[in-house]
Amino acid sequence: MAYKDEQLSEEKVFKDPVHRYIHVKDQVIWDLIGTREFQRLRRIKQLGTSFLTFHGAEHSRFNHSLGVYEIVRRILFNFENRPNWNNDERLLCLCAALLHDLGHGPFSHSFEKVFKLDHEDFTKKIVLGDTEINKILTRVGKGFAQDVADVINKTYENKLVVSLISSQIDADRMDYLQRDAYFTGVSYGHFDMERILRVMRPMEDQVVIKQTGMHAVEDYIMSRYQMYWQVYFHPVTRSAEVILSKILHRAKHLYEQHYQFKQKPTHFLSFFAESVDLEDYLRLDESIVLYYFQAWLEEADPVLRDLCERFINRRLFKYIEFNPNQQMTEWMELYKLFQAIDIDPEYYLVVDSSSDLPYDFYRPGEEEERLPIHLLQPKNDELKELSRQSDIVEAISGKKRTDHKLYFPLDVLEQLPADRPEKARIFEILFG
Amino acid sequence: MAYKDEQLSEEKVFKDPVHRYIHVKDQVIWDLIGTREFQRLRRIKQLGTSFLTFHGAEHSRFNHSLGVYEIVRRILFNFENRPNWNNDERLLCLCAALLHDLGHGPFSHSFEKVFKLDHEDFTKKIVLGDTEINKILTRVGKGFAQDVADVINKTYENKLVVSLISSQIDADRMDYLQRDAYFTGVSYGHFDMERILRVMRPMEDQVVIKQTGMHAVEDYIMSRYQMYWQVYFHPVTRSAEVILSKILHRAKHLYEQHYQFKQKPTHFLSFFAESVDLEDYLRLDESIVLYYFQAWLEEADPVLRDLCERFINRRLFKYIEFNPNQQMTEWMELYKLFQAIDIDPEYYLVVDSSSDLPYDFYRPGEEEERLPIHLLQPKNDELKELSRQSDIVEAISGKKRTDHKLYFPLDVLEQLPADRPEKARIFEILFG
Amino acid sequence: MAYKDEQLSEEKVFKDPVHRYIHVKDQVIWDLIGTREFQRLRRIKQLGTSFLTFHGAEHSRFNHSLGVYEIVRRILFNFENRPNWNNDERLLCLCAALLHDLGHGPFSHSFEKVFKLDHEDFTKKIVLGDTEINKILTRVGKGFAQDVADVINKTYENKLVVSLISSQIDADRMDYLQRDAYFTGVSYGHFDMERILRVMRPMEDQVVIKQTGMHAVEDYIMSRYQMYWQVYFHPVTRSAEVILSKILHRAKHLYEQHYQFKQKPTHFLSFFAESVDLEDYLRLDESIVLYYFQAWLEEADPVLRDLCERFINRRLFKYIEFNPNQQMTEWMELYKLFQAIDIDPEYYLVVDSSSDLPYDFYRPGEEEERLPIHLLQPKNDELKELSRQSDIVEAISGKKRTDHKLYFPLDVLEQLPADRPEKARIFEILFG
Amino acid sequence: MAYKDEQLSEEKVFKDPVHRYIHVKDQVIWDLIGTREFQRLRRIKQLGTSFLTFHGAEHSRFNHSLGVYEIVRRILFNFENRPNWNNDERLLCLCAALLHDLGHGPFSHSFEKVFKLDHEDFTKKIVLGDTEINKILTRVGKGFAQDVADVINKTYENKLVVSLISSQIDADRMDYLQRDAYFTGVSYGHFDMERILRVMRPMEDQVVIKQTGMHAVEDYIMSRYQMYWQVYFHPVTRSAEVILSKILHRAKHLYEQHYQFKQKPTHFLSFFAESVDLEDYLRLDESIVLYYFQAWLEEADPVLRDLCERFINRRLFKYIEFNPNQQMTEWMELYKLFQAIDIDPEYYLVVDSSSDLPYDFYRPGEEEERLPIHLLQPKNDELKELSRQSDIVEAISGKKRTDHKLYFPLDVLEQLPADRPEKARIFEILFG
Repeated sequence: MAYKDEQLSEEKVFKDPVHRYIHVKDQVIWDLIGTREFQRLRRIKQLGTSFLTFHGAEHSRFNHSLGVYEIVRRILFNFENRPNWNNDERLLCLCAALLHDLGHGPFSHSFEKVFKLDHEDFTKKIVLGDTEINKILTRVGKGFAQDVADVINKTYENKLVVSLISSQIDADRMDYLQRDAYFTGVSYGHFDMERILRVMRPMEDQVVIKQTGMHAVEDYIMSRYQMYWQVYFHPVTRSAEVILSKILHRAKHLYEQHYQFKQKPTHFLSFFAESVDLEDYLRLDESIVLYYFQAWLEEADPVLRDLCERFINRRLFKYIEFNPNQQMTEWMELYKLFQAIDIDPEYYLVVDSSSDLPYDFYRPGEEEERLPIHLLQPKNDELKELSRQSDIVEAISGKKRTDHKLYFPLDVLEQLPADRPEKARIFEILFG
Repeated sequence: MAYKDEQLSEEKVFKDPVHRYIHVKDQVIWDLIGTREFQRLRRIKQLGTSFLTFHGAEHSRFNHSLGVYEIVRRILFNFENRPNWNNDERLLCLCAALLHDLGHGPFSHSFEKVFKLDHEDFTKKIVLGDTEINKILTRVGKGFAQDVADVINKTYENKLVVSLISSQIDADRMDYLQRDAYFTGVSYGHFDMERILRVMRPMEDQVVIKQTGMHAVEDYIMSRYQMYWQVYFHPVTRSAEVILSKILHRAKHLYEQHYQFKQKPTHFLSFFAESVDLEDYLRLDESIVLYYFQAWLEEADPVLRDLCERFINRRLFKYIEFNPNQQMTEWMELYKLFQAIDIDPEYYLVVDSSSDLPYDFYRPGEEEERLPIHLLQPKNDELKELSRQSDIVEAISGKKRTDHKLYFPLDVLEQLPADRPEKARIFEILFG
Repeated sequence: MAYKDEQLSEEKVFKDPVHRYIHVKDQVIWDLIGTREFQRLRRIKQLGTSFLTFHGAEHSRFNHSLGVYEIVRRILFNFENRPNWNNDERLLCLCAALLHDLGHGPFSHSFEKVFKLDHEDFTKKIVLGDTEINKILTRVGKGFAQDVADVINKTYENKLVVSLISSQIDADRMDYLQRDAYFTGVSYGHFDMERILRVMRPMEDQVVIKQTGMHAVEDYIMSRYQMYWQVYFHPVTRSAEVILSKILHRAKHLYEQHYQFKQKPTHFLSFFAESVDLEDYLRLDESIVLYYFQAWLEEADPVLRDLCERFINRRLFKYIEFNPNQQMTEWMELYKLFQAIDIDPEYYLVVDSSSDLPYDFYRPGEEEERLPIHLLQPKNDELKELSRQSDIVEAISGKKRTDHKLYFPLDVLEQLPADRPEKARIFEILFG
Repeated sequence: MAYKDEQLSEEKVFKDPVHRYIHVKDQVIWDLIGTREFQRLRRIKQLGTSFLTFHGAEHSRFNHSLGVYEIVRRILFNFENRPNWNNDERLLCLCAALLHDLGHGPFSHSFEKVFKLDHEDFTKKIVLGDTEINKILTRVGKGFAQDVADVINKTYENKLVVSLISSQIDADRMDYLQRDAYFTGVSYGHFDMERILRVMRPMEDQVVIKQTGMHAVEDYIMSRYQMYWQVYFHPVTRSAEVILSKILHRAKHLYEQHYQFKQKPTHFLSFFAESVDLEDYLRLDESIVLYYFQAWLEEADPVLRDLCERFINRRLFKYIEFNPNQQMTEWMELYKLFQAIDIDPEYYLVVDSSSDLPYDFYRPGEEEERLPIHLLQPKNDELKELSRQSDIVEAISGKKRTDHKLYFPLDVLEQLPADRPEKARIFEILFG
């Protein structure tokens, strides 16, 4: 296929605040960016509900996808002519990098949990299905779309290729840490990516890091650690996430109860029925979701209406530290007290545990984990796993630190009459 | 009203990528930020369609409004105890700064032009109408809401207060230049704001700049100049703006022709009828607009459908330099050629002139202009207008540089059969 | 003394690349900066020989001293009106911050070791002796100069004041980490100082950090850790340091042997004799030292000449990892081999252990350590030591990681005739 | 010559705060950096006396030279395989870039004026003379050292090569603007170099810029303009420069008068005699100069002693705006008044005009000017000179704005007895 190597007559660039410029020379990449499935990522925020905590975090997955592509492009530029690297797989890597998040829907985390979806399935469906994306990939060559799907799915034969996109130090993470730091404005998330790219070396089945780059990698791991606890697991973001999930739960529940919606949830029907096809999935972006949430402000059901109002106008739940496993008695008492004052605890008394969130920091060896980071020793080309070389990484790896919080509508509780005995007791349990 | 001076028990901060932190100590400010009318600004992009050119430009007016507030807060911190400054007007300035853009709707520029709206009217209506904002302002004191409206409206008696928000070097512009530069990632838009704030001095009816700060102000003016031509007037952004306007025109036209929409444009009806009330206005944000544009992808009308498809999937019009005043003959011929090939030139052959856009760079003395910049001379406290002191500013002020471009769907033209005589002629006119 | 509160008629600022601006309002501070003893710090590099590794690291202690002053100024701005803080000690803190490094000489580390000096002694002598500094401090009030000396010396009664300048999270470290990162250009050394300053609280005998700021402090500790290993202990810098020490040793040795210098080492005589008075000390800055090293390029003694040539023209020693405690046999053999080939191992075979260097990372509880960091708990105002709250800090604290390296002139060894048996054996030991 | 293409086994990098990393792959470049003549640039500040105004400006010419090399390396990376570019001249360009400032001495500007020297002559002598530099260049090939000298001297046949180093938008200026901005900390000096490099195109006899890059170039020209007025021509820096020149004048004068120096000015003798040979020149760096200035603090001559004290301890002259051409009468009166009070006006009443300084902003067409900037038009490959295309550039080009200041020791004047009639009159003339 001549298309495979087809180059644009002049390199095109996108101005990017994180990587300065994103460079495109391949016609295939240019065409993929122009598809409706890829443009749709503009309508899905990279950080879901985080913009309600960090007002700068309004950037989309479109942004991030270009960034991951650019990082892989730079890695491969360094790999050219190195041993263990076959440049024939260059375009495959670039396409997989660009498209790896294609299957994300609006507010993925909550949607996936409530409606039992998996964005990786949808990525595969978009790449292999009847889509503009698939047409372009197929023009590259027979089997190319399948190869792209396999790389994203981590089942591609050459694990070196897979590791560029999915390992403990892949282009995906390097982009999102820097990008999310940039848009939130936090001072974490910075590390010397240019140096890391320079010390990356292709090996038979993975990308490894020269030992001399260990400190840069430590810095990257620390960025991850800080970003998870300071940004991704931020308790206010989780409050918004809790409300969002409960809206979806409530809407589904109402649908199952044959509730008559004023605004018929057309776009949601196949989600409620748990039989979402690709076209339904692609139609549901965040503007659609926000349209419904605003429409539902006028629904008769008080729970759905209230939860939507909270989400749209950012009237979030408050929270306390609370571990239901260790505080079972309080938990049960609170549950009953909420029932007694007619606040449905299913929707208004919610425990959220941060380890549910789809992020992890460095945990080599755990099941289903991404590939660990290996350091290439100078003299003998031996590989050593990072956490065995680095005290700092060792200190934070393997420790699963779950953070439990209890979320509830403090505003409602405060408005209870002062003489209601439940009120006093609830405040006593919550605030001691 | 004790409320006027009510302070939060502990200062609250927002992490902001541009100003590092935004500090809130006043209960009033905190409460205003929490209103539904202010939260709505999260669903309106600061730069309208610019995100289709600069993918980072996805930030909202919520962001910018906090930024303007913060800059005014810092200015007033420096003004405390200075002559000519009465600190009793501090809270008024802060509220006006925070709320000055409250009346913006989705994609303001196009909406205002097509539906003959004025966002400043709506700001006034939100501040003075039956809104959460008004309730809070009224708690501060009788007449306070009116004062805030007057400051924003530039009719407030103390012009010094007005000039903080509306002059050639006000907090509004200082925020948006820096913020838009940050989010687009361009290297323009940087100037030494800290220095400018330090050389600002309150005078009887305006804020002036100490002569020693002239070079910092020159740098700011240059940032403006570069941002306008590189970002705000970018021809690709204007292409998206052209398509957006044409969608609105077409939908209004169809409505007037009693076209039967599959997706009834409920939210748009009062816009089409040009009788928008406040509640209608507030309900229409960008998520709603994008919902309709996507719904209209399935309309029968081919023009509406096609334009929406172009906007949603970013299949924009191409452009050439074209001045209809000087190229009247070509213009008329093209118009007829488009008609001959059944492409409605009303929608598909559009001249856009950048001077239509709601930005200006420094033009002292023009009608309806913001206050010019005055430099305070060291010895005699005389004031001199900036462009008389600075060669560079003089060079770019007063020159109205209109940039005319002709937009059209190149993709459609390319698909015309090669043997159609109109095709050859059209290409000849367009590309010489 | 009226002088104490004397303010400049207009605030003065210094443009500073790290803190943007350094603000001076107090006449005393302005006058102290103008003294010859303070201006002398311009001729002493902040990072000694690091500029031979990181070419950007050419900044002086003058720079850093202004930075420490500015940070303390900002801390105290936040402390005003807080409990536990008596603003009468403000000027004392500012002076101590500005002057804390006044006693540093050229290439302090090596000079102090070789000539058995202590820069803190000289700081005290400058503050209390017959100097321009002392005159200005004395104008503030009787005993003021002594108070400044006591704060710097950590013997001042109010330990809260001391802790601003000398604790595990003091203004000194916060400035140098950021400044050294800025000038070297490394990507470490960044942390959110603005946030740390905001969560600092004065307590009875120390500055503590609100628990909510823990992650910002972790980030700061990590910056320290990375800066020490990546910058301060860099093996190339240590190579230059080794040569520098050996030059000083050799010159002293020659002096003791009554060697006839062509360029008489006038400025060094009292150093060689270990009886340095204040005036001698102040006269010896880095320009003087470099003058002599260049003059000594023409000395007859081949060791002195060669070492100076290496330092001036950056022909440094190479190094290998080498722990003399564990490799005593090799060490002794090498020593003899060097003697056999007439390369004096006293000067040309040098073990350097990084823990000798005058930096430490976080080691609470160690003898002579700076005050540890305490976190202020939200509810009960209890204090908890940082490393007990933070896994990461715990991981790196208390572990003394000494790094041993062996330095030698590889160039000389390579020029040995190939057939000399010592050559083969030396290379075998060094490179295996 | 095999040496010509000899590559290092592994690319080496220098961490650079301005360009992030400086990359070296050629053995020749590596070896040149290691020479004593190049290392000497570490002891010469890039901005001479500016560090007395901007304390961050302590960076050396070594820094800058590496930066210019790196920029040329990046330009040539983009030029590879372009028409008009012959990659055989790559190494020549890199060497010329690295070495272009090799002949600078300490505080060049003053030294050159007082001692009638020309640093470009010395660059040529170092490149062609008996130096380590010459040995390495000669290893590349016969005539190579001469070619390097010719490129630096602008006499090399291929003017395209010359224009990389010496034109209105060459690597030299692009580096120093950014570098000097970085180290001083001013907010000027930033422009989008990455974009400029991308729009540079080699033409027959010069590098030109694609028209689409015009705004980036405007921004660069503005940076220059601002840097000149804000940094390079700063009146405080010029005060230090005035004192420095007067020290040199005085020392020369004393030497000519057979004054007996306590510290014999050995290093200066050939300078005083205006017969400096290369070895003398190379021996005089800024550490040597500062050594003498400090030694001269103990000279008997009160003028030399006082001026040195002013320079070393930064007790600079004050200044007023003063144009001697228009204020001849005052000038002559002041001159006589100074004589009357025994302050030698030759040394203590100095007019300095900024246009003397060795910087220029954009002045196409002036004699001996560097090549102007040409914009390459898209369709016809025509070239247009920048100032004809850009209003802003036009506004500032060609205007010679000389700034005259009169410098004098205000401290001395203030100490005159109040009743001396000269005092009153002097103050009247100076301050009105």
